[in-house]
Amino acid sequence: MKEVMAILRRSKIQETKAALDGLGFNAFHLYSVSGRGKQKGILSEIDPPMGEIISERYSEEATYSFIPKRLLHIIVADEDVQQVVDTIIRVNQTGYYGDGKIFVCPIKEVVRIRTSEKGKEALK
Amino acid sequence: MKEVMAILRRSKIQETKAALDGLGFNAFHLYSVSGRGKQKGILSEIDPPMGEIISERYSEEATYSFIPKRLLHIIVADEDVQQVVDTIIRVNQTGYYGDGKIFVCPIKEVVRIRTSEKGKEALK
Amino acid sequence: MKEVMAILRRSKIQETKAALDGLGFNAFHLYSVSGRGKQKGILSEIDPPMGEIISERYSEEATYSFIPKRLLHIIVADEDVQQVVDTIIRVNQTGYYGDGKIFVCPIKEVVRIRTSEKGKEALK
Repeated sequence: MKEVMAILRRSKIQETKAALDGLGFNAFHLYSVSGRGKQKGILSEIDPPMGEIISERYSEEATYSFIPKRLLHIIVADEDVQQVVDTIIRVNQTGYYGDGKIFVCPIKEVVRIRTSEKGKEALK
Repeated sequence: MKEVMAILRRSKIQETKAALDGLGFNAFHLYSVSGRGKQKGILSEIDPPMGEIISERYSEEATYSFIPKRLLHIIVADEDVQQVVDTIIRVNQTGYYGDGKIFVCPIKEVVRIRTSEKGKEALK
Repeated sequence: MKEVMAILRRSKIQETKAALDGLGFNAFHLYSVSGRGKQKGILSEIDPPMGEIISERYSEEATYSFIPKRLLHIIVADEDVQQVVDTIIRVNQTGYYGDGKIFVCPIKEVVRIRTSEKGKEALK
């Protein structure tokens, strides 16, 4: 099993969720995080339906240039990692700074608390 | 060492914390997350002392059916993982959808910043 | 690659960010978490420029003694882990309870969504 974590634009969460749902991955959770990547404080907010940059500017808060993002966290079987990563890229790749990153981490065990099921049974 | 992460009902946090405290595990932290599991947007809020469902309904926000949860994060020695997992299950298993999940992840190193202690010393 | 997670005082975030920036590590994100460590609810708020304790008291919320903290999360190449850990310790070690902890976790893969770059290329 692997944990796939993706730092995404807030405006892309619903579309990402729908795409993962469509593939049968419907258990995940979201964090609110503040992120900063290569753009180092350039705020480029993109209008998601049009793929158009609606504003791009340096943050006024020059010493604290973090941008609110969502972190999506999903646990998947090893054989599903590639499909989930590809789906997240497909939905979230606009080509502009701020598209986010995906991290894949090892997971030793998963337990569904309701039933005490473990491993792949807990992911179904 | 392992990282034990558990997505739990908000109403179960105090009891979970007390149970872990009672075993001597008193260092952990909590995130606020939005989660969605197998229930796919059924909000079943359970009255914790009675174990009674006080409301169960489909989320009105049909396209954004995430439920506020807490993520508990605790780092423990390998030999303590089972006890911590069992304790979290015992306190949080109501048998209703939404009981949450537990993830166990590998950790390479832990450092206590105050003292620069590493490894198990940093967990005491 | 490794994920370095550090639970830090809120008042130390800007200085930590500046120190990491100075070393060329400028992509990271921050969570708001509630933490509790060995201090078990002693709130010692330290005035960061002076290193002086401005208040230390037991939390009034005796049954829910979590303290708001920031969790800094940064992905680095294996050879950079030690430098990042040392930098975080240097900036955050006051010697008082509540300095926080650092966790180092394995990461299998990183993808930059904008360009589909993977691995070290995605960290540059």
